This record gives sequence, C-alpha cells and structure tokens, in this order.
Amino acid sequence: MSPSPSSSPFRKRIFVGTFIHTPILSPPTISVLENAVVGVDERGVIGFIEEQVQELYDWDNEDGDSVDGLTKGMRNVVVKNGWEVKDVEEAVVGGYDGSGWWFPGFVDTHTHASQLPNTGLFGTTTLLDWLETYTFPLESRFSSLSHARRVYSRAVTSTICHGTTTCAYYATIHPESTNLLADICMEKGQRAFVGKVCMDCKDTCPDYYREESAEASLESTKAVVQHIRSKDPKGELVQPIVTPRFAPSCTKASLAALGQLAEDESLPIQTHISENKGEIALVKQMFPECGSYAGVYDSFHLLTPRTVLAHAVHLHDAEVKLIQDRGSAVSHCPLSNTSLGSGICPVRKLLDHGVKVGLGTDVSGGGSCSLLTAAREASGVSRLLGNFEELKGASARDMERMKLSVAECLYLATKGGAECMGLEKKVGSFEVGMEWDAQLVRLESVPEDGDKDGEGEQANEGIVQCWGNESWEEKVAKWMYCGDDRNTRKVYVKGRLVHDRS
Amino acid sequence: MSPSPSSSPFRKRIFVGTFIHTPILSPPTISVLENAVVGVDERGVIGFIEEQVQELYDWDNEDGDSVDGLTKGMRNVVVKNGWEVKDVEEAVVGGYDGSGWWFPGFVDTHTHASQLPNTGLFGTTTLLDWLETYTFPLESRFSSLSHARRVYSRAVTSTICHGTTTCAYYATIHPESTNLLADICMEKGQRAFVGKVCMDCKDTCPDYYREESAEASLESTKAVVQHIRSKDPKGELVQPIVTPRFAPSCTKASLAALGQLAEDESLPIQTHISENKGEIALVKQMFPECGSYAGVYDSFHLLTPRTVLAHAVHLHDAEVKLIQDRGSAVSHCPLSNTSLGSGICPVRKLLDHGVKVGLGTDVSGGGSCSLLTAAREASGVSRLLGNFEELKGASARDMERMKLSVAECLYLATKGGAECMGLEKKVGSFEVGMEWDAQLVRLESVPEDGDKDGEGEQANEGIVQCWGNESWEEKVAKWMYCGDDRNTRKVYVKGRLVHDRS
Repeated sequence: MSPSPSSSPFRKRIFVGTFIHTPILSPPTISVLENAVVGVDERGVIGFIEEQVQELYDWDNEDGDSVDGLTKGMRNVVVKNGWEVKDVEEAVVGGYDGSGWWFPGFVDTHTHASQLPNTGLFGTTTLLDWLETYTFPLESRFSSLSHARRVYSRAVTSTICHGTTTCAYYATIHPESTNLLADICMEKGQRAFVGKVCMDCKDTCPDYYREESAEASLESTKAVVQHIRSKDPKGELVQPIVTPRFAPSCTKASLAALGQLAEDESLPIQTHISENKGEIALVKQMFPECGSYAGVYDSFHLLTPRTVLAHAVHLHDAEVKLIQDRGSAVSHCPLSNTSLGSGICPVRKLLDHGVKVGLGTDVSGGGSCSLLTAAREASGVSRLLGNFEELKGASARDMERMKLSVAECLYLATKGGAECMGLEKKVGSFEVGMEWDAQLVRLESVPEDGDKDGEGEQANEGIVQCWGNESWEEKVAKWMYCGDDRNTRKVYVKGRLVHDRS
Repeated sequence: MSPSPSSSPFRKRIFVGTFIHTPILSPPTISVLENAVVGVDERGVIGFIEEQVQELYDWDNEDGDSVDGLTKGMRNVVVKNGWEVKDVEEAVVGGYDGSGWWFPGFVDTHTHASQLPNTGLFGTTTLLDWLETYTFPLESRFSSLSHARRVYSRAVTSTICHGTTTCAYYATIHPESTNLLADICMEKGQRAFVGKVCMDCKDTCPDYYREESAEASLESTKAVVQHIRSKDPKGELVQPIVTPRFAPSCTKASLAALGQLAEDESLPIQTHISENKGEIALVKQMFPECGSYAGVYDSFHLLTPRTVLAHAVHLHDAEVKLIQDRGSAVSHCPLSNTSLGSGICPVRKLLDHGVKVGLGTDVSGGGSCSLLTAAREASGVSRLLGNFEELKGASARDMERMKLSVAECLYLATKGGAECMGLEKKVGSFEVGMEWDAQLVRLESVPEDGDKDGEGEQANEGIVQCWGNESWEEKVAKWMYCGDDRNTRKVYVKGRLVHDRS
C-alpha cells in the first residue's frame, strides 16, 4: 500500500547496508558497496556515500552509542560529511545480515498504462491484428474518467510495487484521462513521462478510436503538456512526452506538427519502430519517399536526442547509424517481442554502434509490468539470438557475443533506461548529487532443515532462495532470474517512500 | 506449509466450483465445467462428476438445507450418485464467485532436485561447461545426508507449492540420498519418479563425481529400486526410474546393463538427448557405430514406451521417427534451453509425428521450478520458432503453425506430461475413475477504485488481475502468462491435501 503524499517533505535521512548498482556498461560491472551509508538530504538528493564504515552495526553497546537510533559508526559518518546528527530523521537499515541490498529503482522506458487490463491476453496474434482485436477496443474505453481512474491507479501502484521508480507511459488519445494519469503519478510519487497518444490517420485507425484531425491531435497534446507543467513546472517528477503512436497511425501533417512542437517546447518524444515485418511493409507503402522507417521519423524531426524508439527488432544498418547519429534511444521490450512473435532485438549490435538502450515492459504486448522480468527476458532472448545469427552464418564467437550478462541486463534496466530518458545525471545509479530513487531487495535464507517458515512469512518472502554460500554477484543473479515483486521490500523516489512491504 | 501426513486416510469428500482442464490436444480444448461437483472417494479416486448442478450455492436458506455444510444441491448430487450424505466428510468449495477454479495438478517430466541451490546461476555457459562449472561440484555434495535432507525437503515443498503433483526427479549418483528424496516425496505426499543418476565414464565425468564402475552403478540403482519398492510396492505414489545421466556420461557396459534392468524390472527410464550441438558432436565421437543420438539409446534398449527424453532440440527427422516408433516421450524444457542457449525444441514437429510431449522445468538449467512458468515459456519460444524457421525458408503459414496456444501449453503441463510418465489413466485431467490430483487456482479481482487492498492480503494474492469482464478462457490465459505460486491456493495428490495457502 502506498504511503500518503503527506509523508513528504522530510528531513535528512541515512540509508545503511549493502548498496549494489551497475554504473558502467563497458566492462559490465556489478559494483558492491558493503557496510555503507548513503546520506539523503531534504530534497531527496544523495549528499554522501561512505563504504566500509567501522562499527556500523554496533547496536549492542547500550551505553549511549545508539542515540537517536544511530550507531556510533553511523554518527561518525554523518559528522565526517558535515551533517549534524540531530538533523538526521532516521537511519533506514536494509539487509545487514547479507539477505538484502539497496539497488537503483528501475526505469521502464516503454509501457502502455491503459493496456493493463489486457495483461496476458494476446492469443496468437501479431502486431497489426493484435491492435485491432485487443488494443484499440480497450483503449477506446478511456473516454470514461472513472474507468481511467481505476486502471491508472492500479497501473502506477503495480509498477511501483515492482521497483519501477521512473516510467515512460503511453496513455490513450483522451487528454482528460491522460492528465489524470499524470496526476496519479504525482500523487503516488512515481517519476514519470506521460504521453497522450496521437493517432489521426483514417486509413489505419478505426473510426471508434481516432482523433478528428492533425490539429485536434496537436491541440490535445498541447493541453496535456500545459496541464502537467502547471502542476510540475520544472518537470521534477512528471514530464509530458510527445507520443505519436507509430508512423502508420499518424498523418504527415500530424507528424510534422508534433516534430515542431517537440522542438519548440523542448519535449521528449516516444514512439514505436520496426517491431513487425507487416508493420514495416505498411510504413514503406505509406511513406515511400522517406527511405526507411527511421527515415520517416527523421523527416519529421522526430528523431532527436530525446527520442525513445520502442522495439527496433528489424532495423537496417543504415537506420541504426541514423539513430545513433541523431542521439536517439531504443527501448528493448523482449517479452512483448516474444509474445507477439515479432522477433529478437539485436541489442549487442545497437550497443556496438553506440546507441543508447533501455528496457521496456510494453504492457500489454508484454505480459508483465516488472522490469526485473524484462531484464530476465533480455538475457534469455540474447542467448537465443546466437542461434538465429548462426543460421545467418555468424561465427561461434559472434554467437557468444550476443549474450547479455546479468550486469548488462541490470544496467539496461537502470542506468541505460535513465540515459534513454535523459535522466542519467539524476537516477539509475548511486552517486553523490543524484536523487535517491532506490529499492530495497531481500531474498530468503533457507533454514537448515530446508522447510518453509510459517504461512504468513512464506507469503511475503517470494521464491528466491539463498543457501548461505552465495557471493553478492550470485545473489544478484538469483534475484534477476527468479525474483518478483515480493523481493522488492521498499521503494523510494526522490527520497520519498512510495512502497513498503517490509 | 504442508499438512502433516496424518491428514490421510480420509473419508469421502466433494469438491465444488468451476473445474477447468485440457483433456484433448487436437483440437486444443479448454474444457470448463461450471457449477460442478466432483466426488472423491476414500482412495482418492474420482467417483462422479456432475456439472450445472441446481441450487449448488444456496446456503442462504437456513431451514435445514445446509445440513453438514452441504447445500441441497450438493446433497442431491451425492444421493443421485449412490453415495450417502453422512459418508461425505466435507465439501471443499473453490472460487464460486468466478475468481477461481480447480485445475489438474501439474506433471513435471524433468527436473534435478539436487540442483535447486543453483537456481538462477549459470553465467553465460552452455551445457558442457555448465556441467563442469556449476553442476558437478554441486551434485557431488550429496554424499552428505544432512545436505541432501535440506535441499530435497525444500525441492519437494517448492514444486508442490507451484502446483506440481507429479514430478520426475533426477537425484545424484548417491543411493542413500536418493532414497531420502523418495522418502521425502512419500512423506510430503507428492507423486514422483525418483532416479539415482548413473555416470561411470572416466573420459567425461570428473574424478570427484563419478561412480566406480558399471557394476557399482547398476548395484546402487538396484538398491534404490528395492528401497522405493519396499515402501511403495505397487508404486502408487513413488516409483523408481532408471536414470543414465546422458549417453556421454556412461560406459557402454553401463548403458547395456541399465537397458537390461529396465526390461527385467519393467522400469521407466529418463535421460537427456540432443540438447546442445557440442554434446551431439561428443556423442557422435563416442558412439560412431550407433548412427545417431537416439540410435545410441536404442542400441542399448533404452528407447522404450516408458522412456522420457529431455530436450530434443536438435533431433534429425530419422531420430524423431525412431522415437515415435519406440513410443518414447520428449520432455520439453523451454526455460532451460533458452538459459543455456541450447535452442528451441520444435514441439509442433514432434506432435505432428505423434511423439508424446510433456513439459519439464529442468532446474537448474531452468531458473524456475514452476510448470506454469514452463507453459508460459513454451508458448513464448514457439512464437520465436517461426522466426527461426523463416530463416530456413518456412512459409508464413508454417511459421504460424509453430505457435502453441494456451490450451496446448497447459495440455503439455498436465495430460501431456501424464502420457509421458505412463499415468494418463490416473492423472492429468478430470475423469471418473482417475485420481484427485488437483490445484485450486485463484486470481485477484481488481476493486472499483483500482487500489490494492491491505498489505496482508496483497502479499498473498499475487499479480494476476481480473477486471470483471474476462471469459474463463481469458482468465486461464492471464493465469498462464502472469500467474505464480501465489495463485495456487490448495494442492491435492491422490485425494490428500498437500499444500494450503488459502
């Protein structure tokens, strides 16, 4: 259950325990800070990070050492960093027994909040018939604000429960319910990008779910931008994002207007690219003059350093280069690409070309709103990709290179996503001056007799098991391959506690 | 938490609610019995099944209709089927509000109980280096009975919690701890096949984890057979299974002796086949005279109607035909095949050829002991398989045919697995005369305001959400694509309650 918004503002706090993050992609690194203290100030900004702190857990000494709940070690660190102990509201200790650690919150670079009710429903469709059969009818219901409130409340709560501290949402074509989604993100305290979906093309969008004109689409986009900026002028938590659904759903007039708007208002952009071969053929037919799918977006000034392109399964080399040249990013959505039979995004190739890559859950093409699941699937499909490439003549070494390691997948889920969203100086890893977007992860320690504890504890502890001899790297791997929302015990955004199941 | 064994024997009971199963593969069918009652007798055998029962939930009538906890509708059904109401111990009602249903227990046709502590650990290895790096060191520890007790207790509890009512286990080369695994299955009430692993080849097995000779391997296999049969003479719950690890781990003398033993003692057999290209090359080098990998097993009389072959990713057509001719079965382990980069098993091709196919979790090559996860992964990789086949020149229609539907994946997880294990007349679907191996599934209904309920309930309810307008087929799909152990509220084997988190 989310705490009420009244829990902020707060005073200084310190977070204590083991801190793990993936600050570097090359070489892929799981960085572990043990016996560490992170000081977070009143604005939710990290003021200091100290590791290998002495006497950190010496609570047993009762003769005055644990004044204000802080041990001597904690107080020493606070003073050393120029803070006063009396200003520290609390010390939040996570997993000092080796069963848990602090990890950066996840950054979901692509999901559809409106599609939550269809999670797990896609039959045997692929993209274009999936849109017609499942998605457009569902999204059209968001003209109702009460329906929107029900779905969006749950969507934001669900992603937060899974450790997602930043989320790039597609809403629907309805500006009022899109505004509501932004309000709910602010209320529940999730960092978010909220986009009203633009789709005005009569040839590809159904009558019952289409905007009237390019002008109408632009005006309602502007209305959402204004609404969000009226509530969060600097975009400290929630930002508007220009969201043409994908090239085929928009008229050229609309694409041009949205490109201009993004430029005029310095707005980020999100859309889809090269997910499915039928879609690619359609784009080629509709925009023959643009040369390629990426070329369409480039033609309308939608390929910018603040653009996030979802999927990118079937890009040509020239498109990869164009995307890299423009500084745009790719949201890799492995579960969705598997479920809809789209194929496998060649992440290694994108990284080799210097393209920014993050992960997306892409609910409801993807059947899970968990970035941890997305990281797991990214690892899995990268192992199958070698088998594809082998059929195309790749060498054993090239096949091996396709594999994404645990460190790489978690990088994509955190700092990689932050880079896609232009937030890499704020979130995605633990550095002084960055904001405290973090989750407390805990795994179960299997008792000596091997049996489960009582029912209550069992329900909350999840299915990841530690047997006592795992290294930190192995614990992280077990979490990535087996964990779920039960392992995410606390979630903080910008210093605010937004989820607590401890 | 498992109930104590003293909860059996029991009297007659009736189970009430919606019953869903997948009794037919062609055409794939999700069969839904609503307002139904299943009578289970003292032996755990289904005595009758009645659907569309009138006045089934009429508890409100307080004037004598609900004597002994049974409504008038229930009592009518009991009497109609020749039972006396006084003989019925209880009515177990599952999900009459539409949020749940009874489903057959899962049949896991391939897993390694001993490898549980390595769940989620495999780095970027493939089969042969994975065995050396992760698996053999782990399995060698099972010379310790206390270690074995800790791991096997948890392994059996874990699979039961995930709804697995029948499990085909590989233990290790140690007969005493293998016997212990069988004892734990009997104690916790899980239907199981328990195999001591045979590996005596000096060229491929490490010194620290190898049996002394073919004779020693045979003798310890016999000792395990005798132990299990001494406790369960008719194999009503637990059966021994002959388990040569895979062809390369065994000498020809050992393979020959195990084939003979299986024939003499009418024993089932489990082993691995064609998982990885390096492994296949090794088999070809070690057994050049056998013509193929399947040919090796056939040469030693190990390809029988009671043989289960795990993986079968890279079989040649002639091998598929040989396996079908011999009536042997394939255990499809999609998560393991993805994790170790083995490839994708062509399930549709096997089914087209009439080969029996079930699902295996293959812990710890696979990172989950859940057959629900295996079903989900089977669906996923079948969608990617079309992309592979396309590269080999398959038509769009052929690609489309590769996809496994929800009904097919759940068939593989239940009745398909039962067929693999020779249990199709006992378990895997709901029929009169079959045994009551079942799980009660429940999904959450999202409240009107969209918010989560209190913390306690949240912890237990899982992440699958119903919004109120889903058909039964859609609920089943949501469960398969999004569900986990939290949705399995009760588990019964042979009429005995072995897990309860309701």
